Amino acid sequence: MTKTNPGRFFEDYAVGDLITHAVPRTLSGGERALYHALYPARSALYSSDAFAQACGLPASPLDDLIAFHTVFGKTVPDVSLNAVANLGYADGRFLAPVYAGDTLTSVSEVIGIKQNSNGTSGVVWVRTTGRNQREEDVLTYVRWVMVRKRGAGPAPKTVIPDLPDAVAAKNLVVPGGLSFAEYNFALAGEPHRLSDYDIGEVIDHVDGITIEEAEHMMATRLWQNTAKVHFDATNRPDGRQLIYGGHVISLARALSFNGLANAQMIVALNGGAHANPCFAGDTVRAWSEVLDKTGELAPGVGAARLRLVATKGFAGQLRGEDGKYLPEVLLDLDYWALMPL
Amino acid sequence: MTKTNPGRFFEDYAVGDLITHAVPRTLSGGERALYHALYPARSALYSSDAFAQACGLPASPLDDLIAFHTVFGKTVPDVSLNAVANLGYADGRFLAPVYAGDTLTSVSEVIGIKQNSNGTSGVVWVRTTGRNQREEDVLTYVRWVMVRKRGAGPAPKTVIPDLPDAVAAKNLVVPGGLSFAEYNFALAGEPHRLSDYDIGEVIDHVDGITIEEAEHMMATRLWQNTAKVHFDATNRPDGRQLIYGGHVISLARALSFNGLANAQMIVALNGGAHANPCFAGDTVRAWSEVLDKTGELAPGVGAARLRLVATKGFAGQLRGEDGKYLPEVLLDLDYWALMPL
Amino acid sequence: MTKTNPGRFFEDYAVGDLITHAVPRTLSGGERALYHALYPARSALYSSDAFAQACGLPASPLDDLIAFHTVFGKTVPDVSLNAVANLGYADGRFLAPVYAGDTLTSVSEVIGIKQNSNGTSGVVWVRTTGRNQREEDVLTYVRWVMVRKRGAGPAPKTVIPDLPDAVAAKNLVVPGGLSFAEYNFALAGEPHRLSDYDIGEVIDHVDGITIEEAEHMMATRLWQNTAKVHFDATNRPDGRQLIYGGHVISLARALSFNGLANAQMIVALNGGAHANPCFAGDTVRAWSEVLDKTGELAPGVGAARLRLVATKGFAGQLRGEDGKYLPEVLLDLDYWALMPL
Repeated sequence: MTKTNPGRFFEDYAVGDLITHAVPRTLSGGERALYHALYPARSALYSSDAFAQACGLPASPLDDLIAFHTVFGKTVPDVSLNAVANLGYADGRFLAPVYAGDTLTSVSEVIGIKQNSNGTSGVVWVRTTGRNQREEDVLTYVRWVMVRKRGAGPAPKTVIPDLPDAVAAKNLVVPGGLSFAEYNFALAGEPHRLSDYDIGEVIDHVDGITIEEAEHMMATRLWQNTAKVHFDATNRPDGRQLIYGGHVISLARALSFNGLANAQMIVALNGGAHANPCFAGDTVRAWSEVLDKTGELAPGVGAARLRLVATKGFAGQLRGEDGKYLPEVLLDLDYWALMPL
Repeated sequence: MTKTNPGRFFEDYAVGDLITHAVPRTLSGGERALYHALYPARSALYSSDAFAQACGLPASPLDDLIAFHTVFGKTVPDVSLNAVANLGYADGRFLAPVYAGDTLTSVSEVIGIKQNSNGTSGVVWVRTTGRNQREEDVLTYVRWVMVRKRGAGPAPKTVIPDLPDAVAAKNLVVPGGLSFAEYNFALAGEPHRLSDYDIGEVIDHVDGITIEEAEHMMATRLWQNTAKVHFDATNRPDGRQLIYGGHVISLARALSFNGLANAQMIVALNGGAHANPCFAGDTVRAWSEVLDKTGELAPGVGAARLRLVATKGFAGQLRGEDGKYLPEVLLDLDYWALMPL
Repeated sequence: MTKTNPGRFFEDYAVGDLITHAVPRTLSGGERALYHALYPARSALYSSDAFAQACGLPASPLDDLIAFHTVFGKTVPDVSLNAVANLGYADGRFLAPVYAGDTLTSVSEVIGIKQNSNGTSGVVWVRTTGRNQREEDVLTYVRWVMVRKRGAGPAPKTVIPDLPDAVAAKNLVVPGGLSFAEYNFALAGEPHRLSDYDIGEVIDHVDGITIEEAEHMMATRLWQNTAKVHFDATNRPDGRQLIYGGHVISLARALSFNGLANAQMIVALNGGAHANPCFAGDTVRAWSEVLDKTGELAPGVGAARLRLVATKGFAGQLRGEDGKYLPEVLLDLDYWALMPL
């Protein structure tokens, strides 16, 4: 019997299956420092205990995307080792901040399944939930992947989950105690409140970052993500290492500080597409579009629904005339972030 | 209205202006570990709680240059985003050690201004002060930069600050409680006391380090320094990324352990010049010259004034016959460090 | 008098010499996070406080190899600066877990010496012991190196220490309190107990990692290992930087998770050879062979003696027909690890 993990194939998923993902992880100031070294992250709430305390939190939480990557990384050996493609995200909600010292685990439930017409692969939907050491849910999201079939067996009954286009404003969870009533805009880096942004407004985040192999591999290992395409230069015929899509998400989100410094906490991931692959040597830039805004959710706190687009080279537009993403577009992410009203 | 920070131009500074820099930062053992990974730092006082406690401190402080880079990084968006050149440093004094858990903020005061004769740029002097969460000053320094003018307006009244050539020995601040009376030379790595060094003595630090792009970018991001020349390979016509001068300072200071292992704490930066640009692929070496020595400042504690020179290739000398820095010289730094007498 | 460390030559060692190595080091969650970023480490006991506590420990220890590299790194300036070759390891025993906050120091005793017949070099055996801030030994091992002679003096009396081929099972030290009675295989990542492995069984760990210069240099600096061959591209005629052998050990050990996820704690290093040099660009893979097994050492705890082989390219075998390591073999390590019975 082989001792190594061959990964799951399409036949290994059934709607209702619960998967406990391996390797719980205790996070510390070390992961936080590395996050700041790997991405140009500057949101004051995630940088300073004093700033976070002035906003009603006990200390500066770890960046929301540290929590996301940690929870996501654990699912890779069980969900995406044999995945042909990562097709999408939906209904991601951040339910509680994660602090240094917290230990995260991940569980997933299979909530949808559909064999492809070619009979050699299928789509699997899973809802993954991250929990801390107090068994509190810290985040939950749905993703769906295309997975290879092992053999030629019959197709399972198709179940397609009902997923929202976006998390409704009323379902956004604001961390207990959070208040932006005394928000210090000077320390946060920009004067712009939620009310200063118009729906439809587009912000070019100006800066670019050229990615090195060592950086994306260190980041991806840090999240204990084991997908071999990221690490093994001999894995693809062209000798290139595919960059973990989450690395591009973090890079773009950090770049978006310049113009969205007050979009502090991510509270929902409405959807996202990794439009084109990213490789070392690419210079990543980002722009955002304001899609929606809420009213007051907590003292002085509102939320902006934002489209975050990462590009290489220049892509002011998202899609070509054929409706497809332009080749320069790397990421098209739709999320909600808490901002001072 | 654009939401992104265009940076300040020469016209945006007036003597007496106070600038609160954004993004306070809580430092932890994570930044310390990264500092050790990025630089070959081995000073015992910054490596071991036990060693620091034997010297009268509550714990091992974070390396002085971690404090410097953190405070400096915050000033970049306000001071040097449109800077043509970083012209110099003066009167830098380290006023209190920084420990894991401390939160640093930076403020700057404009203390000098002088328009260049070409009318398109000028020189701005700022005094920057870093503070911890108890509102204690941890370090202060003056730097001056050449900044572009936005337009063709009239020149402001010239004000040139009066700056010392070097911090006087009597103005050096020794951390409270520090004592080298029981200093353990074997654990520190070298037997040489301050009295073993002669003024004028030159120490070749022997070792070399070849710099990789990933390393200097991780370091520079860690200090939340956003200057685009360091990160964006498309920013310069030659496609090269300019390395943050502070990276060279830290590299050279760490290399100087070999020969100056007991030059433990930096207490003053008297001045410094980034003589030539540094790029990935350069192999950095360092040599030091003893410029001055003090008497006893605290039990068993004296200070050495040191010139620290970083080079690429070989440069035993500093300047050519024309009085200019030789092309191999990267850094010429003048500082005071505390040593066992 | 030169102030820099010229390193010791063969004449500078005598049997019975005790060497206190410099630069004690306090480790934190920062070193732990970096370890996870540099290596694909996933052992649950080293990843999660909650998992370690469920196994009877107070918290998640730092990876055993963090302790090993930290203790080893300190010996480099005193033992291997002028070493021509690192010849071997023996009788390595891990005596107590190391936790974040611990401060490690290293001492070595010279236990053997033998001049080579060429009269220009010799072999020195040292036993190195790492201690924490409570003066508890955390690990001890013997290594022997070939060191250059400074001059042409007479040979010392040959002393060759008596070293075991492997640490006997009865000499393995199990951390106090450790119990695998309630071991959670789902969280650990694989279902295989010690009893599921047969002596002689070979496990191909499947995955590969392509090494970047920045990664191995960051790792090697993190352990304050100063050997110049790792950092200075101008040091070798071919302009290549030799990768620290310990980097390959950590990489291979982390890769071995896939198939040996439950080989949790290293308790002994029986021996090891760095069979061929490793360079950036190499894609490292690993396979293991089960050499021996123990009975119960603590509740639910046994140990497996494992051969861990790191390769570049493909090397299913270890040695060629001439008895020499195949050129693709990088590492041949023999160790004991604790596993659930």
